[in-house]
Amino acid sequence: MLLNCDLGESYGSWAMGLDAEVMPHIDQANIACGFHGGDPLTIGNTLAMAAEHGVQVGAHPAYPDLVGFGRRSMALSAEEIISSMHYQIAALEGMARTAGLTLAYVKPHGALYNDMMAREEVRHAIMRAMAAYHSELLLMLQATPEADTHRAEAADFGLELLFEAFADRCYDDDGRLLSRRRPGAVHNRENMLAQVAQLKAQGTVTTVSGKTLELSVDTLCVHGDNPEGVQAIREIRALIQGS
Amino acid sequence: MLLNCDLGESYGSWAMGLDAEVMPHIDQANIACGFHGGDPLTIGNTLAMAAEHGVQVGAHPAYPDLVGFGRRSMALSAEEIISSMHYQIAALEGMARTAGLTLAYVKPHGALYNDMMAREEVRHAIMRAMAAYHSELLLMLQATPEADTHRAEAADFGLELLFEAFADRCYDDDGRLLSRRRPGAVHNRENMLAQVAQLKAQGTVTTVSGKTLELSVDTLCVHGDNPEGVQAIREIRALIQGS
Amino acid sequence: MLLNCDLGESYGSWAMGLDAEVMPHIDQANIACGFHGGDPLTIGNTLAMAAEHGVQVGAHPAYPDLVGFGRRSMALSAEEIISSMHYQIAALEGMARTAGLTLAYVKPHGALYNDMMAREEVRHAIMRAMAAYHSELLLMLQATPEADTHRAEAADFGLELLFEAFADRCYDDDGRLLSRRRPGAVHNRENMLAQVAQLKAQGTVTTVSGKTLELSVDTLCVHGDNPEGVQAIREIRALIQGS
Amino acid sequence: MLLNCDLGESYGSWAMGLDAEVMPHIDQANIACGFHGGDPLTIGNTLAMAAEHGVQVGAHPAYPDLVGFGRRSMALSAEEIISSMHYQIAALEGMARTAGLTLAYVKPHGALYNDMMAREEVRHAIMRAMAAYHSELLLMLQATPEADTHRAEAADFGLELLFEAFADRCYDDDGRLLSRRRPGAVHNRENMLAQVAQLKAQGTVTTVSGKTLELSVDTLCVHGDNPEGVQAIREIRALIQGS
Repeated sequence: MLLNCDLGESYGSWAMGLDAEVMPHIDQANIACGFHGGDPLTIGNTLAMAAEHGVQVGAHPAYPDLVGFGRRSMALSAEEIISSMHYQIAALEGMARTAGLTLAYVKPHGALYNDMMAREEVRHAIMRAMAAYHSELLLMLQATPEADTHRAEAADFGLELLFEAFADRCYDDDGRLLSRRRPGAVHNRENMLAQVAQLKAQGTVTTVSGKTLELSVDTLCVHGDNPEGVQAIREIRALIQGS
Repeated sequence: MLLNCDLGESYGSWAMGLDAEVMPHIDQANIACGFHGGDPLTIGNTLAMAAEHGVQVGAHPAYPDLVGFGRRSMALSAEEIISSMHYQIAALEGMARTAGLTLAYVKPHGALYNDMMAREEVRHAIMRAMAAYHSELLLMLQATPEADTHRAEAADFGLELLFEAFADRCYDDDGRLLSRRRPGAVHNRENMLAQVAQLKAQGTVTTVSGKTLELSVDTLCVHGDNPEGVQAIREIRALIQGS
Repeated sequence: MLLNCDLGESYGSWAMGLDAEVMPHIDQANIACGFHGGDPLTIGNTLAMAAEHGVQVGAHPAYPDLVGFGRRSMALSAEEIISSMHYQIAALEGMARTAGLTLAYVKPHGALYNDMMAREEVRHAIMRAMAAYHSELLLMLQATPEADTHRAEAADFGLELLFEAFADRCYDDDGRLLSRRRPGAVHNRENMLAQVAQLKAQGTVTTVSGKTLELSVDTLCVHGDNPEGVQAIREIRALIQGS
Repeated sequence: MLLNCDLGESYGSWAMGLDAEVMPHIDQANIACGFHGGDPLTIGNTLAMAAEHGVQVGAHPAYPDLVGFGRRSMALSAEEIISSMHYQIAALEGMARTAGLTLAYVKPHGALYNDMMAREEVRHAIMRAMAAYHSELLLMLQATPEADTHRAEAADFGLELLFEAFADRCYDDDGRLLSRRRPGAVHNRENMLAQVAQLKAQGTVTTVSGKTLELSVDTLCVHGDNPEGVQAIREIRALIQGS
């Protein structure tokens, strides 16, 4: 089980995320592509750090909504989603090559990610974008009970998937993340580590109602926005690597 | 002598340029990369047209100034120029590959082009950007009496150059374009065709004062903003191809 | 019955709309505020034209989506809608005063307009924005069979409304505009003039199925994107002013 | 002598400045207008804080350069400067009124400020913008030995000026700020407080070479980017208010 983290989300003079402190402890850096964060200098610096630490890089494309940080759903047509993804993935791929790296995967950001999980037409537009793109890249999406369906859809497009779980988020019985508005939606340190340990040992999570749910997980999403987040990443890393 | 034209400069709902009418008659399309014009859908459509007509494609990167159409000089640092160019070139290169094309060259746009011609530090930043970029691409700049200096500078960076002349612009005695504010700065049809014929036959232009100036020219810049421009392109094309 | 038209939607070097030709023939100019179109120079020029022709001016605020021209729905929170509207209305109001004009009303643009008509929470956010704004301005929305409900909602916020109808669009039996994807959605010249004449004489429209529908209409929305549109505006104007 | 500080420079999800901690200790808040920072929600929140603490508000307009935070000079025409300032000032003025405040002054930001001080044509464009604007607002610029010239220029436009000095910056013998690249350009705590005390008591600063320079100062610019800055503001405040 790998660790992935959203990085390179600073923009111009505005800093975001403790990227330098996170980079040594993760396997995969999802790098913002300029539409929700990540100006060219930031992208270049983030890629240089990834190269230094041997971290795999992925593109983290978003809806074109800088002021909303890509967190607000937007009614793009399939064609708009496809060309917007091509532009962002291409920008990151070429800059990655220039930094001596090979782009490995794509993880949609924010509202585009949520819409991908919730709406088939958005998911298919994303898959069409990746199938039409000149390089072969993996698509990262959320591990849910619908994983087999998503794998079959991806196969129709000739794509392979990476499934991610969330270390610090409580799952509902349908395998979705509990809404942040509900109590217990975000685990404390102890529950987070227990969830990671259970995912590692049994490939399951315990849902909000106590049900046990199987999740096929390739990578764990972690957050490095603040010192507590960075500390959590270190502990998760130690737990995963422990024998 | 080839013909190059700035294309793909529409943005969202705003159309600019008669791209579909120009494309059949040119050899090289300088395609906007999103910073002064050229949203992802426009870029994709422009690349598809270039592929259809067998037109070579180049990236046309600019200062980040959408409202000013990249025509206003901006005091970017060398690092900002380099990363901004990498981002834009990469976006275009990946989208070109996805359209079955190989990016061939880079021509800076507007104020970035003018600053490149006028200021060594900007020119060197641009050359550093291209030398550091992972693909080998030609750099297009203006054919002037300083061509040998520019060629030597480029050689220091391991780069090759493409020199362009302007079909419809009158040159001053220093080999620069006469300011648009001066009478006679833009040739009428007859003078434009005469200038092209002279460039083709003798490799020279006649300057505003009547002096004859040698210019080493690989490609001619033409404009397709309006029906008259498109007609001029057809006539220049016929003249160049004529025996 | 007045005529209103969306104007000032050019952006930087990109022109849109035949504003100079439309302005002499309308009563109300809905002026873009910079979020979907309308840079500061364009706004200033449009206001100067409105002042010259004695045309009333309204703010035409939009979702922050330049590349999508404000036509794509975006999931803004009520607070985001309110502050975005305040910013845009204020920008236009101050520039209008500087041009010697008084801002009279607000008409949301594109997807924000559609969401206002379709979703109560968006409509209420818009009404809250206008109630909180320091100046008293009218809110323009679509004349539908729900006009009384909308008037009552507005009264709760202390607002007055302007109702607009569309000259060239066919209505369905619910008083909504027939989707542009359906045949007959946009009237030809003859049907457009007939619809305007009927609105003027009887205050009704004939729907797609032949039903007669009462619409309380203060102003007619017309379009000046092209010469045919401008000609239609002249004919509608003559029809309305005719005795 | 008043204290002014640049505030409201956050943008969307990116925070900047300790605005809530600074606001209780200053007299004048220079509020970003959206072109270099300051989205509508941020502007609204900053105005609400200013209202709560009885702080005077000014507009802080900038070149349209979000990614460069308005710190890069841009070659705008006089007309572009004027309309861009009108737009930004108007946005802030209307939002201020909505928050129960009256906009009092304008202080250009970053590169626009520097260009105003260095180049007459930029300064005159700014003065023309303010003279043409419908409200009477003061213009804040730097106190230098050219203050009388600037006052005379302003009088020609019917404007009044506010002169500001910098608490923590060392002055050169021409009354300009020592370049940040030179040692001693930014005062330590002790020298900063000594400079403020001297400005208060004698209306002079001691330049880098030890020369004494008279400066007519209405307001001191302070910075609240970090806890040390906030602490410095408290100390400067105490020093100014002390008897």
